Formats: sequence, C-alpha cells, structure tokens
Amino acid sequence: MSSPRRAFLQTLALGAGALTACRAKTPPPQPSFLGAPISPYGERSPFVHSQRQVSERVTRTPEQASSLTPLADTYGIITPSSLHFERHHSGVPKIDPAQHRLMIHGMVDRPLVFTVAELQRLPSTSRIHFVECSGNSGNGWAPTPRTTVQGTHGLTSCSEWTGVKLSLLLDEVGVQQGASWILAEGADPAKMTRSVPLAKALDDAMVVYAQNGEPIRPEQGFPLRLFLPGYEGNANIKWLRRLKVVDKPYQTREETSKYTDLMADGTARQFTLVMDAKSVVTHPSGGQKLAGPGFHEITGIAWTGRGRVTRVEVSVDGGATWKDAALQEPILPRAHTRFRYAWDWDGSEAVVASRVTDETGYVQPTRAELVDVRGVNSNYHNNMIQAWKVKADGTVEYAVV
Amino acid sequence: MSSPRRAFLQTLALGAGALTACRAKTPPPQPSFLGAPISPYGERSPFVHSQRQVSERVTRTPEQASSLTPLADTYGIITPSSLHFERHHSGVPKIDPAQHRLMIHGMVDRPLVFTVAELQRLPSTSRIHFVECSGNSGNGWAPTPRTTVQGTHGLTSCSEWTGVKLSLLLDEVGVQQGASWILAEGADPAKMTRSVPLAKALDDAMVVYAQNGEPIRPEQGFPLRLFLPGYEGNANIKWLRRLKVVDKPYQTREETSKYTDLMADGTARQFTLVMDAKSVVTHPSGGQKLAGPGFHEITGIAWTGRGRVTRVEVSVDGGATWKDAALQEPILPRAHTRFRYAWDWDGSEAVVASRVTDETGYVQPTRAELVDVRGVNSNYHNNMIQAWKVKADGTVEYAVV
Repeated sequence: MSSPRRAFLQTLALGAGALTACRAKTPPPQPSFLGAPISPYGERSPFVHSQRQVSERVTRTPEQASSLTPLADTYGIITPSSLHFERHHSGVPKIDPAQHRLMIHGMVDRPLVFTVAELQRLPSTSRIHFVECSGNSGNGWAPTPRTTVQGTHGLTSCSEWTGVKLSLLLDEVGVQQGASWILAEGADPAKMTRSVPLAKALDDAMVVYAQNGEPIRPEQGFPLRLFLPGYEGNANIKWLRRLKVVDKPYQTREETSKYTDLMADGTARQFTLVMDAKSVVTHPSGGQKLAGPGFHEITGIAWTGRGRVTRVEVSVDGGATWKDAALQEPILPRAHTRFRYAWDWDGSEAVVASRVTDETGYVQPTRAELVDVRGVNSNYHNNMIQAWKVKADGTVEYAVV
Repeated sequence: MSSPRRAFLQTLALGAGALTACRAKTPPPQPSFLGAPISPYGERSPFVHSQRQVSERVTRTPEQASSLTPLADTYGIITPSSLHFERHHSGVPKIDPAQHRLMIHGMVDRPLVFTVAELQRLPSTSRIHFVECSGNSGNGWAPTPRTTVQGTHGLTSCSEWTGVKLSLLLDEVGVQQGASWILAEGADPAKMTRSVPLAKALDDAMVVYAQNGEPIRPEQGFPLRLFLPGYEGNANIKWLRRLKVVDKPYQTREETSKYTDLMADGTARQFTLVMDAKSVVTHPSGGQKLAGPGFHEITGIAWTGRGRVTRVEVSVDGGATWKDAALQEPILPRAHTRFRYAWDWDGSEAVVASRVTDETGYVQPTRAELVDVRGVNSNYHNNMIQAWKVKADGTVEYAVV
C-alpha cells in the first residue's frame, strides 16, 4: 500500500524522527471498573488544566483587568467559551436577563426599549467571528521577552455568535436624516461607551445573545452584546443597555485618552476600528519543548478584520525564506483561520514565524515595516510578524525578527 | 430610510404582532456596583439552566444510559461541549492521558502502539461534524407523545473535532493485501467494539483528541475517539484503545443484537452505518408557548451523513404545502445546518414541520413513506418528518403527520 501521504511521511518526517517516537512499548491498559454516570452539564477532564492567565500588564484592581486565551492549548478555530479572553473595566456584572433592557433612541422616529425576550423573537443570524482586543500583541511596540503565545497574542478568541442584525432594529426605530454615528453604552458600572459609524451599524453589526450554541457568557456580555465583525474588541460593547443614534462621534474616554494610536509626530489617530491582518504560530511557541529532531507540525492562527485570509506563509529561518502553509477549511470572513505546515526539523537552532495575506492583498508587516509607518508611541494595533526561536535542545523562546 | 428588510418586517411581521411586543415600557436598569473579577475558566450565567436530560428510555443503571442535548435552547450549529448528548454502556472512564495507548495491529506490516502525545505530534486536521445516535428520534417507529424536541431529537450534537487522519496511521503500519475491515475497541469496561469498513477508515476517518477547541470531553471519549463523519454515533468508538485490521466484519454484539434494522419480513439489515438526511424544528417546539399572533421565527437544524444539506422546506399546515427556509452559512458537509423561516402566525391552530433535501437529491420521508420501506420493527434510523402542533393559546405539542 502506498499513497502520497505515506511518501510524504517517509521522506519528510517519520523516516527521520517521528516513526521512532511513534513506537511506544507499553500496550494499552485494560479497563477495569464502571465509570461515571450521565451528567446534566459536562465538565472537562480533571487531567486538563489550561487556564486564562491574567495579563502581564499590571492593573490596580482585578475588576479592571484582562485575561488571556491559552492559544497554545487550543485546537481548530473555535475558542472554548470558558477560555475566551476577558477585558473589562469594572468587573463582570451579574445581570438578570428578565430585568435587562436595550434602549434605542436619539435621532430616531420611534424610540424603543426592548426586553431580551423581545429581541430573541426577531429574525436571527449566526456567524463565526473573532474578537480581538486592539491591545493584543502590543508588546511588539517596545519588545521585551514574553514567555508564551498566551502572553503575546492571547487577547483574541473566536466563537459562533447568534443574535439579531442591528440594521433590523434601526429600521424599526426609523433613523432620521443627518444621523451618522451610534453611541453604544454598556450596563457595567463603568458604563463603557463607544461611538460606532452608522454605516457599520447598518452593514453587518449584530446585537448578540448567544455564543457557541448557548447564551452568551457573562464575561462576554450576558445577556446582550453589540457585535461589530472585524472591529477592535473594545467597541463591541458588552452588557449592551443603550444605543443612541447621533450625528457625530462622541469623543468618549475610550476613544480619546484610550484606544487611539499615538503617531511618531505626537498626533493621535482615532477610530482605527478595523483590526488589520495578523497571524501567529502557536506551535512551536514559547515555553514548549520539542521532543527531538524530525517531523513537527507548525500550526497557528491567522485572521483579518477586512474579510478572509487568503494566504499564510511560514518561515523557519527568521524570515529569510517563506513557504505556503495549508489553510484549514472552513476559511470564514473575520474569523480565525487555522494554518498548518509540515516541518522536518534538523535539530539546529531555527527561528519560526508566520505571515498572513488577506483578501484585500494586505500582507502582515515586519516590525521594521510597521514602525516605519506608525513610529513606536502606540499602545494598540500592533500586527507585526512575531517569531519564536527553537533552540538546539528543543526549548522555544520569544524572538524578534 | 427604507430597506428590503424593513419592508419585510412591516408587511409580514412587526406590523402585526412583534412591534407591539417590542415596546417594553421599563427603561434599562442603572448599573451600580463593581462586578466579578477576571477568572481562569469561565462559567455560564447563573440565570441559565439548560441541561442534558436523561433519555425517556429506561435503562437499568445510570452507567448504561443516555442523555439528550436541549436542542430548543441551543443556537447556531455548534453544540456546547457541556451539553453534547451522551450514550455510554458502562459509564465514563477516568483516563490519564499519559497512561493511555492506541494499538494498531492485525493484518499490518508493522504493528504500532501510540501514546497520545505521539499522535498529537503528527499532522492534524479539524472539521465541524455532527454525531448522532442511530436511535435518535426512534420514537417515531411507534409514536407516543414526547414532550420536547430534546426528547425526540436530542441524541444529535455538532462540534469542531481535531485529530489525525486514520489513513495516515494506516499508511504507517502498512495495511496488508486482503484486509477489508477494521475492528475498533474502546477503553470503557464494556470494551465497546465495532467493525468499520476499511474504505471508510482510508477516506475521512480520524482519531480525534480535541473538541470545540479544547481536549475532547470525557463523555465524548477523552483522550481519543474514533471519528467517522456521517456514521451512526455508536461506531465512533470512544476512549479508543485498539484498532485491528481484519478481513471481515466481526459481528460484535453492537452489530448483531443491537444497532441493526429489523425489517418487516423479520430479517435484519446490518451495517447501515451512514445516517440519512434528517431535520427538525426546534422553535416552536413541544413545551414552548408562543406569546401571541404575529411574527415568529421558525428555526431548526438539518443534517445528513451523505454530505451537505441543499434545501430545507417548512410547512405550517401539517405538510399540505411547503416553502423554502433560509439556510445559515456556513453549510458544511456532515454538520448541522441551521435553517430559519419567517412566519406570520394568524393565531389559529397550526402544524409546523420541516423537510430536508441533501446533495444526493434524497428527500426526508414522511412516516408513511418510511414505514412503506422499513416496516415498524426497527429501533434505529428513523428519519421521518416530525411535526409540532401550535394551538390557538400558543402552547406547542408533539404531533404526527
């Protein structure tokens, strides 16, 4: 029996290292006694311990903090809801959905207040999309070693979201002539507030009430979240309580003193809402240790706020040369895309990195290319190519190329 | 401002009932005090209570039982792993992945034993697929009222699965001339064992170790499960410990005394492994109560073991007339597909049902059409059209058409 796959393994990989690695000597243990009975709501294995870690960025209170998705321990494109990154400014409110309301008012003909049940009665839609904090991978602006990919890129996650299209709600209230923005406000004590272009609200924005098949998790906005596909996470207002139709952006704290991009000349870019294309290798990545030379799969995720990922290239020589990675179907717009690359590691030091191209033709920049345009004053929107150094002993460390 | 969507709502729906329903009088509550801090592994809201229910089919022990996904409470196509249906014959074993092994032997050139870590080192793949127990909706063979869609159809769930292609492992062990089947055995005390055609094993079968982005859940086979896209759930051996390459099916208990289809003439069909196309309305469904006449979204799921769903039709008059439902993208092969249909309910008694067509042209049968071919002796593989009666007071009951 032979096949292209076998030839691939024999020549590239298992002939070298993995075949040896794949000859365990111990036979399978025998099962012995009855296991656990059925259960109403399942839990993960007690042998699995992945956790969201608190961001290395220090905050003064645990309610004003962020936690990071353990990207090296995730698979495929769906992030488990329990491991979706968090970012909140005054803690996760405990909201009774029967008491919650969404008010839509301002420059409208018929201001309305909706209950959650009323919104759930309306025509619904489901989409698989990432959410990424615009501060994700911000460490790249002033590179200091980060231990893991959770530490560098853990502020992005991907879920299936279900809700009602915001355009439908806006049609119902009747947007008035001259309106051009929406002010969105959360029901957290911080009353997180952001201005959103009306064009986005009328395009693909949603008010979502479900995530990965069940009601949206409290940390992600239960019972209602504004969802703006491809926009920076902060604008996707959680615990959504109010949408005011207005005729200008409102220059809230979160779009003046925060979430702006300070440029080299001291001016600040505002409303850089769309997340640019980014990719990162999750295996091998910082803190892991390769068992030895031979076959290893290089894998990671790529995404773009501007549509679909069309190409991911992988380098094992610090960016000197690049080769195409395989993209796992389905490749969905504004969703994580899983990439894979078969690597026959010769055991010498290697610097591994990935580079994404999106459907607009935009190519993920090197740090030098990014700094050339943006300077180094920013905190947000760093999408530079991120590398990992695989040392001869198999350990993996943070690297800048 | 006007749009096709608004016209739709005004004429069909909100003009009648939902617009009134969407005018809550109470304004949004004011947030007051700090919420919960970040957490390492999130949980759902304490206001959400959906559970897997034990199957109405009585078993003698809770370890030999099944539990059902609450389909009426799920959204989109991804089933939360905590709510994935269960079916096990001797409980859920607690397996230490460091001790677990998968042995591949029989008619092979190089029998191999793999650790979990060794399998995870190999080239991986991810796919979104349903798993369905062949006993799902078996109540249709001798219809007796079931309360809910969880009771009728809760033995199907859909997840993103990640693992290694079985064809790759078989290439490595070297399948010998004359081999035609694989015997798969689980590490539960029952040693659940099924025969699988070698052609399926070499096609799209996988050995999976992850589900919805994290390690596969214990109830679904942690740390390893044989995954056979589109095949009846029972054949997707959980806690996979052994694959023996053989030259015939082994006529195990699970393919002789169980999981065969008893026909009208007393003979039994064996190895009817592929799940035929099926669909069911999850809203409105048994146990729910519609708030009143006007707009209601009819929604549900459709799936087929033979590829993609190409069409779902909905009837609100007990099957007399049918109209096309909208299919939510992405429409993936051998995965749940979410369908939606806008319904302006006039408040009189209605019988709601769905009918799926798959890419082979196969159309989901009525009960009469199914019984015509199969008789009524079977326990398994009932995929008949299932209806719900919406009564004038809005309550919803089980119905047979």
